[in-house]
Amino acid sequence: MAYSIAIERTSAPKTKPEVSRIGFGTIFTDHMFMLDYETGKGWHSPRVVPYQPITLDPAAKVFHYGQTVFEGLKAFKTADGAISLFRPDMNFRRLNRSNDRLSIPPLDEELALAGLKTLIGVDADWIPAEEGTSLYIRPFIIATQPTLGVAPSRNYLFMIILSPVGAYYAEGINPVKIHVESDYVRAVPGGVGNAKTAGNYAAGLKAQEEAPQGYSQVLWLDGVHRKYIEEVGSMNMFFKINGKVVTPALNGSILEGITRDSMIRLLTHWGVPVEQRQISIDEIAEAHRDGTLEEAFGTGTAAVISPVGELHWQGEKLVIGGGKTGELSARLYDTLTGIQRGTEPDPFGWMVRL
Amino acid sequence: MAYSIAIERTSAPKTKPEVSRIGFGTIFTDHMFMLDYETGKGWHSPRVVPYQPITLDPAAKVFHYGQTVFEGLKAFKTADGAISLFRPDMNFRRLNRSNDRLSIPPLDEELALAGLKTLIGVDADWIPAEEGTSLYIRPFIIATQPTLGVAPSRNYLFMIILSPVGAYYAEGINPVKIHVESDYVRAVPGGVGNAKTAGNYAAGLKAQEEAPQGYSQVLWLDGVHRKYIEEVGSMNMFFKINGKVVTPALNGSILEGITRDSMIRLLTHWGVPVEQRQISIDEIAEAHRDGTLEEAFGTGTAAVISPVGELHWQGEKLVIGGGKTGELSARLYDTLTGIQRGTEPDPFGWMVRL
Repeated sequence: MAYSIAIERTSAPKTKPEVSRIGFGTIFTDHMFMLDYETGKGWHSPRVVPYQPITLDPAAKVFHYGQTVFEGLKAFKTADGAISLFRPDMNFRRLNRSNDRLSIPPLDEELALAGLKTLIGVDADWIPAEEGTSLYIRPFIIATQPTLGVAPSRNYLFMIILSPVGAYYAEGINPVKIHVESDYVRAVPGGVGNAKTAGNYAAGLKAQEEAPQGYSQVLWLDGVHRKYIEEVGSMNMFFKINGKVVTPALNGSILEGITRDSMIRLLTHWGVPVEQRQISIDEIAEAHRDGTLEEAFGTGTAAVISPVGELHWQGEKLVIGGGKTGELSARLYDTLTGIQRGTEPDPFGWMVRL
Repeated sequence: MAYSIAIERTSAPKTKPEVSRIGFGTIFTDHMFMLDYETGKGWHSPRVVPYQPITLDPAAKVFHYGQTVFEGLKAFKTADGAISLFRPDMNFRRLNRSNDRLSIPPLDEELALAGLKTLIGVDADWIPAEEGTSLYIRPFIIATQPTLGVAPSRNYLFMIILSPVGAYYAEGINPVKIHVESDYVRAVPGGVGNAKTAGNYAAGLKAQEEAPQGYSQVLWLDGVHRKYIEEVGSMNMFFKINGKVVTPALNGSILEGITRDSMIRLLTHWGVPVEQRQISIDEIAEAHRDGTLEEAFGTGTAAVISPVGELHWQGEKLVIGGGKTGELSARLYDTLTGIQRGTEPDPFGWMVRL
């Protein structure tokens, strides 16, 4: 189905930054995609417009009741000069699952993808080509009705903004040290932990801030028993124990990561056994003690893989794999980034070419 | 201490609505208060300006990570024509507790109160005088830094907007029917349930939407054991059982309501025993069965008291007090609204005159 997406081009293109100097999500491209929703009328008026501030009533529900969802994915300039997206259908499907949990009306996933492709086409020369770089894509929906009653909004705005990002590992893939959080809780079954919504991230800032010096992220334990592993920072978590890979099962309180799914499929494809189940921090500490904890890593869109070199748990420091990147972590990282850049075969048809 | 608050008056005052026709939080006054924050500079530039849309970068952190807090309180035109606020110091103190949980820099509570008083002075003729009406006050803070890294913002905006509200009980105080929620969870200790932040409200919309027909609000049970009473909708909950009043203790996952505190102090002042403790839904069902459950009510700024005439719990309907407003609920409502309107003595010095 073809969609009619209006395009208004900027008359004042910005100067593009030097890729080596850009961080994450600080520079935005020349255009953005917008789509409005109004009860009774549905989603309407898809358009690409110059990147610009948005104007909202101070009573807009997003400011007060946090009715908002978002996604994060990437576009790549491949080795042969083409532009491709990594599994964008998965992101828009998850966006609709988040919408459902947040009482936001569902989006036409094909229209969202068409909007994204149109936007990327307009801003194609913003996609960096250097190894390890990409164009980070942030679709999001905010509730805009300006009334203070606690009820779902009658108006929404769906937007996509784009940000060129430099290499996550400028000096090679590097393990991080993680603090296992025992005071704060990220989410609990019955809550919104498996939705990609703003409140989950606001809730996590304090723990990050209070983590001991040197620990860049926190590992969340479940909110009921306070012992089962949930996520690390905003990444899913994997452990390699005695030749097997284990990762927390999708239990309703962790995010259904698309990189997580991709890792599981790659590992299965390679014949590496993967278990999705409950994993307690005690099991990890025990595997560390008896020498069977071989690797640990987080997975997410931004870093792809973040090897964990040390876990800090109740005063104890569990050094994993000598604090170095494990072999399997490196292989997963190289394979997935290779698929994304078109230098490795894509056996699952994950890449969508523009 | 005197603060220098700039005032810019509107050149186009709006027509004031008929009070009988205004709902909750849909009409706003002619002006609003603003205060900016920048890391290194602190909170600065307090000002009253015409009520108007605000302009934000689409990457502003509030849209993506929900770093935001708010408050709700009321101003009244008292029987003698004066303007007074109900316990505003409590709201700004709680705002700072919420700020701490959400990694937002603390606000000067006296400056916030001075800003509120200045704003209300400018919009004084917007305060309705009819019995049961008031001016609803919504202070809130949003994170405005336009970057997508998950970290506390370096910029914030504190605002106060005002909304005249009609009588909550236009036809006399009226009990509500409440559905006891058994699937969704509002909050859990270690989370943000005791902070007044947007994400808590977004998380609750779905349960409200899915509650059976006829039940206007849900009663939340705790997220760990799924049996202890937390809150009802966005109100604190009280029960009168066998002559004693019980209300859930402040356990870290329920909001520390200012109306809740006021009710406890009034009851204690009257010699009615009040217990703040864990209360299971089974205890309530048992008290209902043996005839000792005399009254139930929610408390909050908007309604003051919302008597509960029926609880719906796992298919069973617990009708309370014959579905009518209880004597104690009515006395609490009459006394507190009388204090607010200046027709009853104010033994605790709660009202702050402008």
